[in-house]
Amino acid sequence: MVTTITGARYLAEFVLPCDEDGVLIRDGAVDVDADGRIRYVGTADAAPEDASRVPHRLPGLLMPGLVNTHCHSPMTVLRGQGEGLPLLRWLAEVIWPREALMTEDDVFWGMTLASAEMLRYGVTTSCEMYFRNEALAAAVQASGARCLITPAIVQAPWPWLGSLDEQLDRVVRFGDTHHEPAGRVRVGIAAHSAYTVPEPYLRQVAEVAQDRDRLLHLHVAETEHEGAEVSARHGGASVPRVLADLGVFRARVLAAHAVWLSDADIALLAEHEVAVAHCPGSNAKLGSGVARLGDLLAAGVTVGLGTDGPASNNDLDLWEEMRLATLLARLRAHDPTAVGARRALELATRCGAAALGLPDIGVLEPGRFADMVHVDVADPAFVPVVEDADLVAHLVFAAPRTAVRDVWVAGRQVVADGVCVTVDTDEARARVQQAAVRLARGV
Amino acid sequence: MVTTITGARYLAEFVLPCDEDGVLIRDGAVDVDADGRIRYVGTADAAPEDASRVPHRLPGLLMPGLVNTHCHSPMTVLRGQGEGLPLLRWLAEVIWPREALMTEDDVFWGMTLASAEMLRYGVTTSCEMYFRNEALAAAVQASGARCLITPAIVQAPWPWLGSLDEQLDRVVRFGDTHHEPAGRVRVGIAAHSAYTVPEPYLRQVAEVAQDRDRLLHLHVAETEHEGAEVSARHGGASVPRVLADLGVFRARVLAAHAVWLSDADIALLAEHEVAVAHCPGSNAKLGSGVARLGDLLAAGVTVGLGTDGPASNNDLDLWEEMRLATLLARLRAHDPTAVGARRALELATRCGAAALGLPDIGVLEPGRFADMVHVDVADPAFVPVVEDADLVAHLVFAAPRTAVRDVWVAGRQVVADGVCVTVDTDEARARVQQAAVRLARGV
Repeated sequence: MVTTITGARYLAEFVLPCDEDGVLIRDGAVDVDADGRIRYVGTADAAPEDASRVPHRLPGLLMPGLVNTHCHSPMTVLRGQGEGLPLLRWLAEVIWPREALMTEDDVFWGMTLASAEMLRYGVTTSCEMYFRNEALAAAVQASGARCLITPAIVQAPWPWLGSLDEQLDRVVRFGDTHHEPAGRVRVGIAAHSAYTVPEPYLRQVAEVAQDRDRLLHLHVAETEHEGAEVSARHGGASVPRVLADLGVFRARVLAAHAVWLSDADIALLAEHEVAVAHCPGSNAKLGSGVARLGDLLAAGVTVGLGTDGPASNNDLDLWEEMRLATLLARLRAHDPTAVGARRALELATRCGAAALGLPDIGVLEPGRFADMVHVDVADPAFVPVVEDADLVAHLVFAAPRTAVRDVWVAGRQVVADGVCVTVDTDEARARVQQAAVRLARGV
Repeated sequence: MVTTITGARYLAEFVLPCDEDGVLIRDGAVDVDADGRIRYVGTADAAPEDASRVPHRLPGLLMPGLVNTHCHSPMTVLRGQGEGLPLLRWLAEVIWPREALMTEDDVFWGMTLASAEMLRYGVTTSCEMYFRNEALAAAVQASGARCLITPAIVQAPWPWLGSLDEQLDRVVRFGDTHHEPAGRVRVGIAAHSAYTVPEPYLRQVAEVAQDRDRLLHLHVAETEHEGAEVSARHGGASVPRVLADLGVFRARVLAAHAVWLSDADIALLAEHEVAVAHCPGSNAKLGSGVARLGDLLAAGVTVGLGTDGPASNNDLDLWEEMRLATLLARLRAHDPTAVGARRALELATRCGAAALGLPDIGVLEPGRFADMVHVDVADPAFVPVVEDADLVAHLVFAAPRTAVRDVWVAGRQVVADGVCVTVDTDEARARVQQAAVRLARGV
């Protein structure tokens, strides 16, 4: 007797699982069970017979959803505001005063618009570090996206943030109430950075992360200035060295940016299995620098890609981050073989999932969630394909992000033929526009 | 009596002429006459009464078509081939052997697919340096695109190229028969570079360019290696110095790439009014380096943007080049104010037209050709807009290239609602795919 499970079968011209072997399956099939997990990935010929599965034919390519490992997505509300100002004036005159006024509603609609944008273009998971996390979580729940929320503590002058003790208490409670071990919303914890969180609190956050096995998310060595400031306060020690000495790296850590690293710093990250969220677009736009991607990978560090917040990018386009990751690595090395197309695609999928400690996404393989993207390869930019590797090169270097036609999260379709069907994008646009105008008026 | 001319009136929420003042017109109108030239640009309120003009309403933004100042577009046939090989092996094992086999048909279909891709995404003009230029011109004529063709002479071992004398004769005749002073196809002349064309021929090409007032297009200082090689042969002189000393800069010159320049080289380019085609994507992908965009602009050099050939990019997306131009300039300067969004947009429009010596395109203003792009601003990436400048920031940093919905060249619509209506894109895809497979087999 054959056990049949009600579920779907997707048949695609090409299936790119993004596994370690980098295989490309022609005339492939992916079976998805009713629980949202993948049961089979392989050729259509060899797929198990199962009359209960209605086949869906997809012209083009099926691959895992992209993973955005570092983001402050509700900042869609501040996208493009104050463009062209020097960094400190931009933060002090535009970003911080408006963030201080952001309400639960603003965060909800900012995250809702961001989710619509990310899903539309194939980003199925994001790792968020922001505030007003109940509103953020509500937006993610409603949108159908997957999210690792890492509520942060930070020393900042906004009265509603409360003391660091109050913040710590709040973020711990948020995790205890919102974390679903196999759910779409999972929770880590964040300390903004070594220069905005006092040492005793860095230690406490790390302890919470260790006790509860939560991912600890921090900004690390984003700018040269930050490195100099931390170093001056700690007898010349680098940011990673300071964090390691505080015991922070005993937790599972995701270091965002990690631009200004010495060889010893890279060795330290590798030794402590600290993962890196590489944000080439934001680091370029803010003039911060180019992270040592090739050296991090050579040292065995797990690296994912991040857009950073849409105020400093200014979109949530992980296709662009893939391209920038490989382009900037080639410039840094003066070598067009420095970080290849396939590696860039891995950073945005399997390695991003690994960086977030989410082994149940990022690859199309049995047992993982069916977070999937269907890419239409009819755009001229996908021509020609002579070898299998050409398709990967086109995905990374040439595909417009709109080549994404359909998207699923845990087997549920969230984008159909280029339209996000789980979010009222028009309402989200209108609400974000209203919020931006209000915040610009300072109310 | 009011003289009425049969023509069209386009009404748009926003009109961005890309003029020197950077004005944004809300509720704007653009009148286009039957000869394909613009008659009026301004607010709809103030537009001249003219009952013969049927108004077309466009939700979103109307702006000039983009200008791709350096391209080898028929190389769509080689897109993505040999990805990941070291540069010299890639050229010697993949690109050159296949180029040597390319037929008139291959160039025609390669250029046809490229034109479909460029028009679809708002690039209305390209400056082409390739071979088999009759086929290239025929493809441009059929596609409705605008093109400055600069047929090149080059010392290369393909028998069908002929001797340098034969090549020179051929490119001069091509210009004399194909150049239309106010047409869609105009002709310049090219010498591939100072390291691939012997001095006497560089001089002769420059004389032809001067005599006929044609643009002279050369690769200049693209790689560090090239600079070292030329310098070794010329007593330490830089590539620009060698070209200036040969009298090449007495012609109107477009220097493609111009990455490896000293301060003296930049002063030399400025002094001789040499324009630069800046190709940040190609320069990054091939690991060549980052051109000194900020310094070139500060010295008063006219700079346009180019994608370079799609084999080394791998697309023809000038939106991406805009973004890379500003991102890489910021990285180079460690300064987020280095090259602003508005400047990047100017490089892709007005300055690109100026770099090609085409004063009749690149700006929406009376007398210039109606080469226009309608951008749909409904994508989430265009939200919010509080100040006028926000729209420009979104165009440069956040817009997907598919936000281009309609495109006109000299008043003729070539893209309608996201579809290129002048090219059979499916046939072009199929022909390019066939050609690529054949060339890979070495026949």
